[in-house]
Amino acid sequence: MAAMQDVQKRADARGIAIQRVGVNHVQLPFLIKTKDGGFQQVLADIRFTVSLPKEYKGTHMSRFVEILMPWSKKPLAEPEMDAMLSEALGKLDAESAEIELAFKYFLEKKAPVSGGSSLQGIDCSFTGRKARGMAMTFTLGVAMPFTSLCPCSKEISDYGAHNQRSLSKVRVRFAPGRECIYIEDLASLLERQGSSPIYPLLKRPDEKYVTEAAYDNPKFVEDILRDTVLALRKLDGLAWFSLVCENQESIHSHNAYASHEETLR
Amino acid sequence: MAAMQDVQKRADARGIAIQRVGVNHVQLPFLIKTKDGGFQQVLADIRFTVSLPKEYKGTHMSRFVEILMPWSKKPLAEPEMDAMLSEALGKLDAESAEIELAFKYFLEKKAPVSGGSSLQGIDCSFTGRKARGMAMTFTLGVAMPFTSLCPCSKEISDYGAHNQRSLSKVRVRFAPGRECIYIEDLASLLERQGSSPIYPLLKRPDEKYVTEAAYDNPKFVEDILRDTVLALRKLDGLAWFSLVCENQESIHSHNAYASHEETLR
Amino acid sequence: MAAMQDVQKRADARGIAIQRVGVNHVQLPFLIKTKDGGFQQVLADIRFTVSLPKEYKGTHMSRFVEILMPWSKKPLAEPEMDAMLSEALGKLDAESAEIELAFKYFLEKKAPVSGGSSLQGIDCSFTGRKARGMAMTFTLGVAMPFTSLCPCSKEISDYGAHNQRSLSKVRVRFAPGRECIYIEDLASLLERQGSSPIYPLLKRPDEKYVTEAAYDNPKFVEDILRDTVLALRKLDGLAWFSLVCENQESIHSHNAYASHEETLR
Amino acid sequence: MAAMQDVQKRADARGIAIQRVGVNHVQLPFLIKTKDGGFQQVLADIRFTVSLPKEYKGTHMSRFVEILMPWSKKPLAEPEMDAMLSEALGKLDAESAEIELAFKYFLEKKAPVSGGSSLQGIDCSFTGRKARGMAMTFTLGVAMPFTSLCPCSKEISDYGAHNQRSLSKVRVRFAPGRECIYIEDLASLLERQGSSPIYPLLKRPDEKYVTEAAYDNPKFVEDILRDTVLALRKLDGLAWFSLVCENQESIHSHNAYASHEETLR
Repeated sequence: MAAMQDVQKRADARGIAIQRVGVNHVQLPFLIKTKDGGFQQVLADIRFTVSLPKEYKGTHMSRFVEILMPWSKKPLAEPEMDAMLSEALGKLDAESAEIELAFKYFLEKKAPVSGGSSLQGIDCSFTGRKARGMAMTFTLGVAMPFTSLCPCSKEISDYGAHNQRSLSKVRVRFAPGRECIYIEDLASLLERQGSSPIYPLLKRPDEKYVTEAAYDNPKFVEDILRDTVLALRKLDGLAWFSLVCENQESIHSHNAYASHEETLR
Repeated sequence: MAAMQDVQKRADARGIAIQRVGVNHVQLPFLIKTKDGGFQQVLADIRFTVSLPKEYKGTHMSRFVEILMPWSKKPLAEPEMDAMLSEALGKLDAESAEIELAFKYFLEKKAPVSGGSSLQGIDCSFTGRKARGMAMTFTLGVAMPFTSLCPCSKEISDYGAHNQRSLSKVRVRFAPGRECIYIEDLASLLERQGSSPIYPLLKRPDEKYVTEAAYDNPKFVEDILRDTVLALRKLDGLAWFSLVCENQESIHSHNAYASHEETLR
Repeated sequence: MAAMQDVQKRADARGIAIQRVGVNHVQLPFLIKTKDGGFQQVLADIRFTVSLPKEYKGTHMSRFVEILMPWSKKPLAEPEMDAMLSEALGKLDAESAEIELAFKYFLEKKAPVSGGSSLQGIDCSFTGRKARGMAMTFTLGVAMPFTSLCPCSKEISDYGAHNQRSLSKVRVRFAPGRECIYIEDLASLLERQGSSPIYPLLKRPDEKYVTEAAYDNPKFVEDILRDTVLALRKLDGLAWFSLVCENQESIHSHNAYASHEETLR
Repeated sequence: MAAMQDVQKRADARGIAIQRVGVNHVQLPFLIKTKDGGFQQVLADIRFTVSLPKEYKGTHMSRFVEILMPWSKKPLAEPEMDAMLSEALGKLDAESAEIELAFKYFLEKKAPVSGGSSLQGIDCSFTGRKARGMAMTFTLGVAMPFTSLCPCSKEISDYGAHNQRSLSKVRVRFAPGRECIYIEDLASLLERQGSSPIYPLLKRPDEKYVTEAAYDNPKFVEDILRDTVLALRKLDGLAWFSLVCENQESIHSHNAYASHEETLR
């Protein structure tokens, strides 16, 4: 075994430094820190890469998995992402490292009238990027579902109005030294810009409430996007966001779509 | 090359006749016969299998692709499915053969007021199964989208009612010697049981029409399923069906679901 | 509120008893009992239905979510599935109830030479079906990945042999009164029938071991299926199984496929 | 009807010009021009958007579908994409418009020894973006499958070497006034950088050829990426590319991954 060749370490003559090389779609349980000071176990789908200098033939793929295993057992937020990336820079001898965890996170929802409690799963992501000796860049992604009700349909119809599931997907980055928003708060910001929030558990009085709330608050996908932009701009320390809003139109099988990106400082 | 071993043809001692062996997720363009006497090119995802007697170690996977290639260029309906399966029985020396083509098929839709024309894609499947010397069993699958509007939400709310995209997925089999229904007619049967059909292209007067039509015709997923069962039972020669109806509830991120299966003769 | 109509409870005149009605794609964390006496938290995708007598217009969709919420917090195996279904039969006044939980479950894997530990996620399902006053029918589903190496390619080539990811998907049902197999044991049974197990973490000596093990143990998809059938038939108390084996051929972009189903008693 | 309100045309006071608003996941048959001067019908999944000035409340969603319908019947390449976008700029009174068509395109493949012909489907995209009075920016996307064989596994093992399906996904943009490469040529460039091309139809002599070719040409994902970068840099007029290479490791259920992006002029 002592003589087993390390093919990856051999010299490479092509002169190309690769921007990202590593593993994709590793699946592991991870612990995500929650707003209330605890943590939540999630199922993470992971991409984990480093840059590769032009001199080396390859990286060491098994080390990514070795680094991930112990980190999957520690409650995770920005500082732990930073430490995980620092470990990757060292163990893989790299100039920069990047990790993205995509996971479903659960929020407790209280039905608006009955107060009945249920759990709403939402798609989230943590992306960290770190160059040697530099601060980490952290990006939070949240996709929040809600209901939208069409203003045109309401206006032109004698009764009723078409409504549907909608989804706002946002990615946010804060200025260096500023704290990122909690998933819970960003999700709440997003759902407030729709016609009405949705809930896994609704009793009849709740259903009446949600139905009437949506009818009272009709919104085009353009309205949802603009109101979300206004709400995001008010976030203290926000440096950048990208936003996609999509209505799964109940009168079509295609979606109404709007997207927007801003660098704030 | 003459001496190249045919490993698959070797004898097998485990004594297990395999029910289905072949290829899955072959993707090819196919031509599907239309109701109006023409044909439509589709992108087919294909599973093609035969039974394997206990004496043989393996089947010949390349022959499935060889059989498919020329058939992908001939307009296809039940008789051609039968001929394709007969060819498989012969070339693969099998007791039974089965093929499933899953594809998106386009229907022309006319907007209800303006009459504007557009194309609605729907997921369909052709499944044929044939044992040596027997008639083919043919199963048609159609999944049709439409709008549903909730009767409970309408009843309990002072105004409005939640509505959403719905999908009915049916598979039908006709009695031996009886002709199968056309995709166009089965799709139409399905969408008539919802609160309103949907259309890729709707101008404002159409949107008013669809909104009011759905409000005038509220349906639970149970209503849609029952009305579809009643409509299917009236089909001349129908021998079996299985049906799934699902409402993509605009007030939840889970679906309302109903399913049912009947053997009619 | 007292006067709010219960539209679902109204009488229905169509005379159709629906086989399954309820919710689909509810997503919740659940706790699954492990072989070692503990439990593992998973992300469950849930279908939960009851039968609906012909007299009633609809079921009560919110009750499914109400039943699920507390059960998602208790470690779950067959007895708890039975109790959950009994609760559904009572609270929804139904003749039969069915629940399917689909989830990713993690197994600890030790690399074959270095012994390095890592977690392999596999797709599993628990399906329970219960009619009033009867014993529950429980079905366990496990999909296990491994490597397959082609016997034909090995035989006809002067060196090398194509190999690829494979997946065996099995569903098993045991005779009344007999205990179901553990996920861990069924997964192990499945992977032993491939050319070699796979591991998230492999160091160089492990990679050499796995490469040579697969080359020493070439298998067609037919071999994998037959060896799995032989292994399943030896399971004490097994009443029924259905099996799909699929090789993601590295020399094609379609799969080699085999499937088989047996009722044993 | 004359009095029906155009809600979308109303003034908006929020002061936000939206970057992209329109429709997503419209599905239609389209005709794509082929290298040999003909065309191929494909199933297109379409996103079609325009910018919206801050003064208007909304765009007119039905016009996107109206524009698409006739264009879906004309063989399409860069000039037709440009004309479609010009039509959108006019009919939707917009400053910029963007369209992306994602589709499966079929290439004829000849088996390397037997010469047997079959069709390989590959995922492609056309993206066009046009600002009023400016030239269109056109981006071509192609994802090509092939086989990769691991150099480390070959080197350290006494026999055999793990190999697997790989996929290179590239997006390319050419300098203004320079012609874009054909799908056929870009696909061929990509597959030549793997260990061996793959084919839907392979007879035994072909399988021997492909097996030995891959064993003779081992490549890490880093090698595939670098060789692809070298090949892309030689394309006359190429202005920008982004590249992702991924090996679906047969000894893991996660992928080896590399990505890279370059602006060339």
